[in-house]
Amino acid sequence: MSASLSITQQEVRRRNLSLVMHAVAGFGPLSRASVAARIGLTRAAVSTLVDELIRDGLLIELGPSRPGTVGRPGSALQLNDQGPAGLGAEIGVDHLAVCAVDLSGRVRARAAYETTNRGRAPGPVLDDLADLVRHVSAQAEGEGLRPAGLAVAVPGLVARGSSAVVRAPNLGWEAVDVPPSLSSLPLTVDNEANYGALAEMWLGGDPSLRDFVHVSAEIGIGAAVVIDGRLLRGTHGFAGELGHMPVRPEGPPCACGGRGCLERYAGEEALLRSSGVDPAQAAARHPGPGGRIAHLAERADGGDQRVRRALHEAGAALGIALAGAVNLLDPQKVVLGGGLSPLLPWLLPALERELDLRVMDPGRVGQGAVIVSRLGPDGPLLGAANSVIQACLDDPTSLRAGGRGAGAVP
Amino acid sequence: MSASLSITQQEVRRRNLSLVMHAVAGFGPLSRASVAARIGLTRAAVSTLVDELIRDGLLIELGPSRPGTVGRPGSALQLNDQGPAGLGAEIGVDHLAVCAVDLSGRVRARAAYETTNRGRAPGPVLDDLADLVRHVSAQAEGEGLRPAGLAVAVPGLVARGSSAVVRAPNLGWEAVDVPPSLSSLPLTVDNEANYGALAEMWLGGDPSLRDFVHVSAEIGIGAAVVIDGRLLRGTHGFAGELGHMPVRPEGPPCACGGRGCLERYAGEEALLRSSGVDPAQAAARHPGPGGRIAHLAERADGGDQRVRRALHEAGAALGIALAGAVNLLDPQKVVLGGGLSPLLPWLLPALERELDLRVMDPGRVGQGAVIVSRLGPDGPLLGAANSVIQACLDDPTSLRAGGRGAGAVP
Repeated sequence: MSASLSITQQEVRRRNLSLVMHAVAGFGPLSRASVAARIGLTRAAVSTLVDELIRDGLLIELGPSRPGTVGRPGSALQLNDQGPAGLGAEIGVDHLAVCAVDLSGRVRARAAYETTNRGRAPGPVLDDLADLVRHVSAQAEGEGLRPAGLAVAVPGLVARGSSAVVRAPNLGWEAVDVPPSLSSLPLTVDNEANYGALAEMWLGGDPSLRDFVHVSAEIGIGAAVVIDGRLLRGTHGFAGELGHMPVRPEGPPCACGGRGCLERYAGEEALLRSSGVDPAQAAARHPGPGGRIAHLAERADGGDQRVRRALHEAGAALGIALAGAVNLLDPQKVVLGGGLSPLLPWLLPALERELDLRVMDPGRVGQGAVIVSRLGPDGPLLGAANSVIQACLDDPTSLRAGGRGAGAVP
Repeated sequence: MSASLSITQQEVRRRNLSLVMHAVAGFGPLSRASVAARIGLTRAAVSTLVDELIRDGLLIELGPSRPGTVGRPGSALQLNDQGPAGLGAEIGVDHLAVCAVDLSGRVRARAAYETTNRGRAPGPVLDDLADLVRHVSAQAEGEGLRPAGLAVAVPGLVARGSSAVVRAPNLGWEAVDVPPSLSSLPLTVDNEANYGALAEMWLGGDPSLRDFVHVSAEIGIGAAVVIDGRLLRGTHGFAGELGHMPVRPEGPPCACGGRGCLERYAGEEALLRSSGVDPAQAAARHPGPGGRIAHLAERADGGDQRVRRALHEAGAALGIALAGAVNLLDPQKVVLGGGLSPLLPWLLPALERELDLRVMDPGRVGQGAVIVSRLGPDGPLLGAANSVIQACLDDPTSLRAGGRGAGAVP
């Protein structure tokens, strides 16, 4: 126990400021009276909080709302669209991307390009990313925004609460620290699957979605678990490694040291191999991010039986691993991330069949329990940028001089 | 959003009362000044809170501590050992048990007997349990305690936030409501594996243990997941069904409708079958709860190769399923519950071997990552009783007339 356990007035104030921000973010424009009614504080208390948030440039007041109504009209509050910006960056295996979102999560600046990061030394990749961040940051400032923090999504394991990439096999990185010098902004680094799941919760369009397993697929199988609206990080920050759930214990050896892991059946490389597709040829036919997936989808669509069989097997393996996860976690939904979308017509039937068969209480994974993300492949990038914004909403004082910084993911 | 989002003075007060209770529970006897230092409130504020807790019969003041020290001596505060009691009950397949613990978690009254609940109608079982609760409740009152709530552990799925047993296959129960009329106390019902895990956290002796998977084994395989000190309940209350993780997807059919579930390799029935042991004979040789397990242990100890091989296979299956759970959850530890203890010498080597092989980052499950509960088979019963006490500590106002009741598990 430490001396900070009791709730101080300052913490109550911080929490109340956050409640105002979340009310306006979720339901604005709102009058002060409506905010007060929503969060259960007096109108006088809310007015003081709102004044503070306007002074800090987080809220703005529109003209009087509803001019036709009786009584003194209240001005409508909304998030300042020239307030703080959240910067998100993504280091993909074959691309770099950076975007800036405003307080309402709208993308206001963005830059991305294809490149080959796999096997490249981390230094030059990070230098390129720093250039891109500077570029997008300047664009955001040109839009009148104040960049408040940078969150970087990487396809690998990141040690909890650090910017240390412990291992990113598909980049060929081992023990790479993303340096704070990457930009002048407060920095957070996390696994791309984690940001993808957060994006689904914040932007996926279903505010009731608070407990789910999110499966993404870039080259490997990434997954993340959200419980009661919070990302499950795990003791070391490594939670969500669905790709290494044993599917067939005596199956083929996996790079992780195990055997028969999900990734050996449903990862992109395994899929290409079992489809008899040459990766280089696939990439040549469909260049750019997602090209190999697009190539497989084209062949399956064209009736290639070997590809279809491989996808069926991969869907079954996904279903077996997910059944274990569902029995263990009892989530509301399983969300399949955008990267897999092109293959779903061939993956989904076997996947759902295994879930139906193996999840202990059949009522749980009935129709609609498996949903497909509408965010497409942008999920991780948007999740990263929005994590900075969510940190602002959760602690609006974090942006002040001496504040706690806005890089933290909830 | 509702009108209760903001923090009221009453909630701050409730939280501060709880901080005082937890400080005294964890580190008492403590002077008021020491409590104030621990929780970061002024001594005056703490004194007001303490007076309230003494008035409510939750704390008592010992005589002045350290009479030899200079200055005005502070009286030492401790939990009232004639305060509220938490009643825990366990409906086992072959026994009923009830105990009462005081605020410090000490067992002050207890009764249990062997019986055959499997296949019996729920009504008579619950009538017997009600008798036992009355008996133990009277004993506790005789000790000067005030029973504050009753928590019932059942070997089955309980719908979240209800007292509805959805399914308890080993009792033969389907859709059984444990009625509030079971006793006059506020009632909570939960899965025995959940209470076993909570007991491990509260009583297991390692206060740093906050993220773990707890495996228990009565007849089936029960498990529970604790994340950041809180039980993972799942959307429907069904989280923790490790027993239905697919171990071999094409394995033998399971009662759940799936195939090759962990329970088909490591559940008690499966173990007896693969050991070639007749359950009736085993029960005759070792009557009472845990008798069949004791019988298997005796045969393995005596060199029975078939039993040893069955235990080796069961250990491997446990390791495969747990590897999936560890890769997904990244816990600090895997805790093997007390019921399995007699078999560990034959289960553990294969279990640990599979974990070492399959957990993605080998540093995670090194030596000491698998630990064995010291609570023995009493975990669920003690966890149930202590859940009532923890609810008192978390909200000391819950015991007052009009309070929220003390049956809730955190």
